[in-house]
Amino acid sequence: MRQRNKPWAADMFAENPQFVPTNPIERKGNWKDVFQNDHPIHLEVGTGKGQFIIGMAKQNPDVNFIGLELSSSVMVSALEKLIEEDVPNVRLLNENAQDLQSLFEENEVSRIYLNFSDPWPKNRHEKRRLTYKTFLDLYRVVMSPTGEVHFKTDNQGLFEYSLHSFSAYGMTLNQVSLDLHTSDMEDNVMTEYEEKFSSKGSRIYRCEAKFRL
Amino acid sequence: MRQRNKPWAADMFAENPQFVPTNPIERKGNWKDVFQNDHPIHLEVGTGKGQFIIGMAKQNPDVNFIGLELSSSVMVSALEKLIEEDVPNVRLLNENAQDLQSLFEENEVSRIYLNFSDPWPKNRHEKRRLTYKTFLDLYRVVMSPTGEVHFKTDNQGLFEYSLHSFSAYGMTLNQVSLDLHTSDMEDNVMTEYEEKFSSKGSRIYRCEAKFRL
Repeated sequence: MRQRNKPWAADMFAENPQFVPTNPIERKGNWKDVFQNDHPIHLEVGTGKGQFIIGMAKQNPDVNFIGLELSSSVMVSALEKLIEEDVPNVRLLNENAQDLQSLFEENEVSRIYLNFSDPWPKNRHEKRRLTYKTFLDLYRVVMSPTGEVHFKTDNQGLFEYSLHSFSAYGMTLNQVSLDLHTSDMEDNVMTEYEEKFSSKGSRIYRCEAKFRL
Repeated sequence: MRQRNKPWAADMFAENPQFVPTNPIERKGNWKDVFQNDHPIHLEVGTGKGQFIIGMAKQNPDVNFIGLELSSSVMVSALEKLIEEDVPNVRLLNENAQDLQSLFEENEVSRIYLNFSDPWPKNRHEKRRLTYKTFLDLYRVVMSPTGEVHFKTDNQGLFEYSLHSFSAYGMTLNQVSLDLHTSDMEDNVMTEYEEKFSSKGSRIYRCEAKFRL
């Protein structure tokens, strides 16, 4: 389905290399050069229309944010926002999470955000969920030993599954919230989806999962 | 506060040794003799008025159930039910969870149930929560290596905390349910408390936590 709706997406990405680095695989191990500083790198897998990553980047100027988005049509919206807001510490990559090891060196990423990932509710699609163990393997390789996965979703089934998957992998769950918007979490940056569904009264679930040293 | 409301509780326990074994500490390592069979032993810590343990015992005649209840006044109600229903595979102990190692030999227990435990919401009372790490230490010692803690509560804060505590202890979370009564769990036996609060629309949270081999 990629690029079917907005065939000009690839051209737009190519015209904005300051936000969408060309040949990202060649940046592996050298993302500091791209940002021209030593700040930690936080990665959002499935960055959608970019509201979260751009909001986080504005709130945390000392962190570099990279957003991965598989759908070029969706990523166009994130790029448009980014051009408009001109936030210096964000880059977008039109790449697949399965290729994380081609994009990042071991220990190159300090934190991974998963927001409202596709729940893939059918059992036979378990392997596609971004909290399935093969994805946790990838996260572990590219993340520093103290790295954390910060996860939020409104999907009860995906959250229940992910609590199992994180813990079965030996990860420790911290800051678990079973109703984020009635909890006292400060500085929560909402995704577009989160804004819509929490305003309808849906619970937002959140946790931080940390690899064991 | 023990025995203040029902000073005759101790007498009633003494009069029913078939359900409330005398000198339970002397049974350590020999609970099979008490039940006169080799069935696995499931322990409920905080058994309250006994509806859960008696319901479970009727549903699972091949399991031996032991209920610990600190409050003698509360345990009286459980004993009254037990006498009335005359279920052979239940014993009640008016004991403190902190004394588990005095009551059970290593590996003597196959499963531990924690139902609607006191949430002790203040941070300074964390150590009193039955899912605090010192309690997990006790459970690990008395449980067989494949033993599981089955936990349910309506208290969001206690459940959030416990997901952290179990995972930080290296336990794997299975069968997580963030809304038990709309899930497809069969054979759920409700506690008195659960019946009351779920009928009012409160969510019931549940998980099974397993020690890593």
